[in-house]
Amino acid sequence: MSQLPLGFRAAGLPRHDRPRPSRHGMAIFYSETPAAAAACFTTNVVKCVHIPLDQERLKSGEARVIMVNSGCANCCTGDRGIREAKKTIKWASKALHVSGKEILVASTGVIGDFMPMDLLSDEIPMLSKKLLGDEGVHYNSFHKAAEAIMTTDTTVKIAHATVRIGGREVRIWGCCKGAGMIHPAMTLSGKPHATMLAFVLTDLKTSASELKPMLGEATDQSFNRVTVDGDMSTNDSVFILANGASGATLKTASDRKAFYEALREICIELSKKIAKDGEGASKFLEIRVEGARTVKDAQTMAMTVATSPLVKTAAYGEDSNWGRILAAMGRSGVHFDPAKADISFGKLCVFRHGAPTSVSAEKAREPLKAKEVVLRIQLHAGKAEGFYWTCDFTGQYVDINARYRT
Amino acid sequence: MSQLPLGFRAAGLPRHDRPRPSRHGMAIFYSETPAAAAACFTTNVVKCVHIPLDQERLKSGEARVIMVNSGCANCCTGDRGIREAKKTIKWASKALHVSGKEILVASTGVIGDFMPMDLLSDEIPMLSKKLLGDEGVHYNSFHKAAEAIMTTDTTVKIAHATVRIGGREVRIWGCCKGAGMIHPAMTLSGKPHATMLAFVLTDLKTSASELKPMLGEATDQSFNRVTVDGDMSTNDSVFILANGASGATLKTASDRKAFYEALREICIELSKKIAKDGEGASKFLEIRVEGARTVKDAQTMAMTVATSPLVKTAAYGEDSNWGRILAAMGRSGVHFDPAKADISFGKLCVFRHGAPTSVSAEKAREPLKAKEVVLRIQLHAGKAEGFYWTCDFTGQYVDINARYRT
Repeated sequence: MSQLPLGFRAAGLPRHDRPRPSRHGMAIFYSETPAAAAACFTTNVVKCVHIPLDQERLKSGEARVIMVNSGCANCCTGDRGIREAKKTIKWASKALHVSGKEILVASTGVIGDFMPMDLLSDEIPMLSKKLLGDEGVHYNSFHKAAEAIMTTDTTVKIAHATVRIGGREVRIWGCCKGAGMIHPAMTLSGKPHATMLAFVLTDLKTSASELKPMLGEATDQSFNRVTVDGDMSTNDSVFILANGASGATLKTASDRKAFYEALREICIELSKKIAKDGEGASKFLEIRVEGARTVKDAQTMAMTVATSPLVKTAAYGEDSNWGRILAAMGRSGVHFDPAKADISFGKLCVFRHGAPTSVSAEKAREPLKAKEVVLRIQLHAGKAEGFYWTCDFTGQYVDINARYRT
Repeated sequence: MSQLPLGFRAAGLPRHDRPRPSRHGMAIFYSETPAAAAACFTTNVVKCVHIPLDQERLKSGEARVIMVNSGCANCCTGDRGIREAKKTIKWASKALHVSGKEILVASTGVIGDFMPMDLLSDEIPMLSKKLLGDEGVHYNSFHKAAEAIMTTDTTVKIAHATVRIGGREVRIWGCCKGAGMIHPAMTLSGKPHATMLAFVLTDLKTSASELKPMLGEATDQSFNRVTVDGDMSTNDSVFILANGASGATLKTASDRKAFYEALREICIELSKKIAKDGEGASKFLEIRVEGARTVKDAQTMAMTVATSPLVKTAAYGEDSNWGRILAAMGRSGVHFDPAKADISFGKLCVFRHGAPTSVSAEKAREPLKAKEVVLRIQLHAGKAEGFYWTCDFTGQYVDINARYRT
């Protein structure tokens, strides 16, 4: 329990805990006092109904509640979707004794479906009661909330840290969901894409203006470098609430650095958990591009390789077919000299200066048999680096997405 | 036989006809007289060895032979790959009594593998002899050549037309291959991408400078609008040879139009055959974007939807999950107003002006049960249109690419 930030409460009703099995889950995160709040949202032109509502609320820089429904994206639902979202905020406001202006909402699920209003009208009061009771501060409730946001996820994704700031302990706790329609590109000014949701709670004493650049930078270094299928969602969101209950503030540059690094590590841990739990995934892949002319070049190339179906199916087959990596590099839009490029599987170099090395196909497979594989590209064109995290591409991904609505 | 252009010969040794089963095939197309020649090549930065050799030869605007090996891309093979390609040209030059400068080469297969020189040293003379003999002018030999270029293709892809120009008949015959690593973006000035190869032979009397813009335009309207997996190859090439044996020339604008339209139709027919035979495909999909502000917008959006794994797996599952189409539209980089957009499956409108129509999910599935499905997007933002052809995404695609080297 010690890792939970002070002054927060949570409650969750995972889909599998419902009286009747359902594809809907519901979670609420709550701060006992007004908290500094910031969020990054997807850059998809098509946005779920909740994002403009949140953006309006975030203008004050404060919030107390984040209410999450999983199973329904509430996206492309027209005016009815907006009316229904506002209604759920009213229900939560009443049940939690919090102004509707302090309630943020997030959702994930099928685009075009309407919200399960019958369920929500019962469950928002029920969950709120639990949250405000003794249970609300227990670790188990936070765990249930993290379970409740899952859709096609197979594992709960939680990360936490404690960092000393000015002699005081500051706690950061985060959870996220995401397994398919994963290729986030979120900004602070943002619009929505594919669905990954992350929630970070901390008892640091700070302001929205101090939080925003840190959240933006941490998101760029973590969630925005994960892809499962290249399909950006309409609902991607990362939220942070900081309620000040620790009493610690960021007085010096080194305080700021210490907090930022802990926040970034949590975001990285959560991001890797998304890639590892990608729909149907059997392997985690890190694509590293080194020796690029610019960071943008390195990132673009890493992303192109990470989204290549041929690279990802080869990884699944543990096939050392590095030609597919080169073909993806070559279509990335980055100018480079293939005759200078190297490719390594982990530490094993299979392609050097534009030609195959003497490593046999059989030997080259060895590093690919691991559960976590690093594909390393060296361009010898400069000093910039970039990376992307992804997973392999399996028949199970196709099954999940052909058979079920997600 | 009547559809074959005059003055051409062909020969092919498909992989399944070899004495010992092999993954290599070999084809030769030959003109009895020097032919005007043009080609479009992939824009991948990583190019197979053959492309710069062809580009050098095409400067003269003439060629007589195209020699194709399937099974080995001869790409990323360094200096050895170049030496070996030149050696095969020498062998063909000797066997066909044609200058090496008049021989174009094309290849498709595994990147990084070296050419099967032992096989080729036997087979180039053997196939050349067949080609120069009685068999060379028969329809069967052209069919065998079209079979011989196949890799993971399951069907032979041939198209032909006869068009009257200035009172004479002009014949156009084409064949192509391509099933995976398909997302061509070829230009006349080009560089290589994913592997599709196409060969067009005609007995029109013309010049390279007259052919080039027609081939470029026809390629843009056909091959460059097909995607199977979004993975552009390093070897994509479309060649045309025109040997003048019909005696017909393009004297008027309407002659030019008639020939261009026949050429374009052949390229379109071949392109659709590629999408229909995409690796593991069970369905052909046409993505049409209408009412866009610009053609570029329409094309970009059609391409993004056509490469979306979630759209393609939904098509496989015959799931009317149009939210995935909207999510792909929204991440395409095209600015549009989702509240004005419509989506139809064939003629059935499932989403209108930013909200679901009353069509039930079950009814919306009906049009998706066909073998050929049109997904139509109307943006109501302008008059520009665009389209892309693709196929659904099945577990078999994953099997093919995880289990076999392609």
